[in-house]
Amino acid sequence: MLDVCLLGTGGMMPLPNRWLTSLVTRYNGSNILVDCGEGTQIAMKQAGISPNPIDIILFTHFHADHISGLPGMILSMANSDRTEPVVLVGPRGLREVVLSLLVVAGGLPFDLHFHELTKKEETFEINGYTITAFKVKHNVTCYGYSISISRLGKFDAEKAKELELPVQCWNKLQHGETVIVDGKTFTPDMVMGAPRRGLKVTYATDSRPCEAIINNAKGSDLFICEGMYGEKDKLKSAKEKKHMTMYEAADMAAKAEVGEMWLTHFSPSMMNPKQYMNGVRAIFANSYLGKNCKMVELAYKEEEDE
Amino acid sequence: MLDVCLLGTGGMMPLPNRWLTSLVTRYNGSNILVDCGEGTQIAMKQAGISPNPIDIILFTHFHADHISGLPGMILSMANSDRTEPVVLVGPRGLREVVLSLLVVAGGLPFDLHFHELTKKEETFEINGYTITAFKVKHNVTCYGYSISISRLGKFDAEKAKELELPVQCWNKLQHGETVIVDGKTFTPDMVMGAPRRGLKVTYATDSRPCEAIINNAKGSDLFICEGMYGEKDKLKSAKEKKHMTMYEAADMAAKAEVGEMWLTHFSPSMMNPKQYMNGVRAIFANSYLGKNCKMVELAYKEEEDE
Repeated sequence: MLDVCLLGTGGMMPLPNRWLTSLVTRYNGSNILVDCGEGTQIAMKQAGISPNPIDIILFTHFHADHISGLPGMILSMANSDRTEPVVLVGPRGLREVVLSLLVVAGGLPFDLHFHELTKKEETFEINGYTITAFKVKHNVTCYGYSISISRLGKFDAEKAKELELPVQCWNKLQHGETVIVDGKTFTPDMVMGAPRRGLKVTYATDSRPCEAIINNAKGSDLFICEGMYGEKDKLKSAKEKKHMTMYEAADMAAKAEVGEMWLTHFSPSMMNPKQYMNGVRAIFANSYLGKNCKMVELAYKEEEDE
Repeated sequence: MLDVCLLGTGGMMPLPNRWLTSLVTRYNGSNILVDCGEGTQIAMKQAGISPNPIDIILFTHFHADHISGLPGMILSMANSDRTEPVVLVGPRGLREVVLSLLVVAGGLPFDLHFHELTKKEETFEINGYTITAFKVKHNVTCYGYSISISRLGKFDAEKAKELELPVQCWNKLQHGETVIVDGKTFTPDMVMGAPRRGLKVTYATDSRPCEAIINNAKGSDLFICEGMYGEKDKLKSAKEKKHMTMYEAADMAAKAEVGEMWLTHFSPSMMNPKQYMNGVRAIFANSYLGKNCKMVELAYKEEEDE
């Protein structure tokens, strides 16, 4: 299971009752934070999520509304007695920008590890998460992220019995270990079925629509995407500022055949995004508006043979 | 008249429903902001105050809860089409800290002028405000601020008539100008009474109680002071961390004989500061709790001879 919480839906500047766009995922006691604008630590407290277990912070880009809450967040993590290192991931220049911002947050009780992205697309694994960063189309270098949890195949108890495997060894094989019993070697593939469908969340903001987003969103249970504008006549503005409309986001969601889409990163000028949802759902039915501290617990889909 | 708005009452970290401590004053179309922690721009929007007319930002010190909201605030000022320069005042090192934080806020449409404080006490005038910065006692260099508005003496119409001054000249003399009529020179002091009592606000946080605060708070209509702790047994903690209790603040308010005191900069651990107010008022009766966006319009006191 993967807990997902969209902390806010604002773009450009935080507003009363609209926190800036950022995301937390929780899996197996290890949390990922994606972006950290001004006020993100307050939103997280409001959502009842502790800053302590944030092991990884992914940055889409370095515009202030996506990173300027970092000093406060890092200090709150320090105040929660964290001592384990934190991995920070973002575009080239990350280390310099972060250390510059942390001028007001000295003497941290944990180390910061920097992972600067340099390729168009990059996949890495941390704490059971598989993370893919992919370059999107903004007016500065900006990345989207897919966060996936894999799921092992089903354990075949009949086969284990057939192989006369003692029950005490089952758990090890289920967790990927090889066991030796009476000189015989048993490997997990002998008793485990093919890997089952895991869970996947894709997050994309700020960008024009692009193939990289569609390709990476494919297979996502949840696709969280910017919908900066709802007014049809704002398409020109979206193109100029390298953002997208809610309809463009829905079009990508349909092409990627995601489970559902949440819209976020609303322009401060858009006071009532709800009014555009009929038009959005005509393009992709499973579209929803993001809101402050919107949570879902993504569960594995049960399979036919289970 | 001087508008004063305490934007928040938090210390250390912002909380849901408790913005960090900072202050706005409005006088004659020119605003002062004192401190700018994470979320201060949201509090200001909530208070209905525009970021555009902030001409002066005073920083008490460089702990994150007092300055890390600066990039967002400066960007919001830029987005409000401000082009006039902004004066930033704070302890030595101000320029370096600010420029470091503004790594995520490039290409501003206005200049920043830095005024670094180096003395124990310093008084300067900007836009009709008289500002005194005075060093307080924290674990890093930290200043308190008194913000005063002076008030001219009363115009003596009888005397003006006696001197046969044409009515057309009165306004100039009332505004401090010298006029020449039929070769005769008239100076303001000939028709203006002694300067009347103006308005004064004093702001002190983070500090142990000290003479500099008491001396500068004297004559203040409003004294805004930290009251980090209310629990009597937190005095030791206050001494260690170079903060003060609500009772110590009240003691200074009484010694300085201020008009009224607002308490602020509450510890995140203090969830209900109200419960300590009986004890505080036993020391200084005119004590009040600060709260988010607490406003007052300070008006000149009418004098007996008016």
